[in-house]
Amino acid sequence: MSGKPTPHDIEEGRLLAPKFDASGLVACVATDATTGDVLMVAHMNADALKRTIETGEAWYYSRSRQSLWKKGESSGHVQRVVEMRVDCDQDAIWIKVEQAGPGACHTGRRSCFYRAVPLGKAGAVTLEFREGKTFDPKTVYDK
Amino acid sequence: MSGKPTPHDIEEGRLLAPKFDASGLVACVATDATTGDVLMVAHMNADALKRTIETGEAWYYSRSRQSLWKKGESSGHVQRVVEMRVDCDQDAIWIKVEQAGPGACHTGRRSCFYRAVPLGKAGAVTLEFREGKTFDPKTVYDK
Repeated sequence: MSGKPTPHDIEEGRLLAPKFDASGLVACVATDATTGDVLMVAHMNADALKRTIETGEAWYYSRSRQSLWKKGESSGHVQRVVEMRVDCDQDAIWIKVEQAGPGACHTGRRSCFYRAVPLGKAGAVTLEFREGKTFDPKTVYDK
Repeated sequence: MSGKPTPHDIEEGRLLAPKFDASGLVACVATDATTGDVLMVAHMNADALKRTIETGEAWYYSRSRQSLWKKGESSGHVQRVVEMRVDCDQDAIWIKVEQAGPGACHTGRRSCFYRAVPLGKAGAVTLEFREGKTFDPKTVYDK
């Protein structure tokens, strides 16, 4: 194969050909390898993806800080990648991880998805908390 | 509370206040409510999110077709939402779904994440197929 991969190459081929968006990013979903729960959704640029593949630990790109970021670099809450998958059109990554420490979320919780959205109602929505804090983010991040 | 929600309101409050991006979208991860596997990652605009909440079935916004889209509207492979979660900064949604029919992926597979990315190697990456086709997309979509 030479030149630009075709849609068929991208969907049915064995070549990793990530479709980065206009900002150079793909979405990445991290799930807990044991429970299957979604821990977080973040973004990877080409460098973060390369480092994650090479090291087996999760690297991301922070849109707010505009910088490469190793998960756990300040908190110690690193993510060991058990398996990485790529989706059909190669614009999203799924990693199953072993989450070190008490949680993945900067608010001090295991998962970033700690609130449920009730279904079946029209109008204003009141969120329901499903997870409490497992650590104090102040002592973990403000060092 | 009046006016624009603060970061604290967004992270610790009970008000659903989705942070749509410049294109008016949030990312949505759909996982299989039974197996926990990630089925797909797609996007929702405000209307898709509202309809999903009200109907309990997954609606998305197609960036390529630039239109609202009910999952399964042409294939019959609808997604009944068992639970919806929102993340800390409210720019991502997680839905646990019961996937109707043989799969979620337009390529004819159960999940869009049917290829694994091997870890621990530098250089070119060869994907490994982990899921075969469960239906023929031609007969399902080209009607």
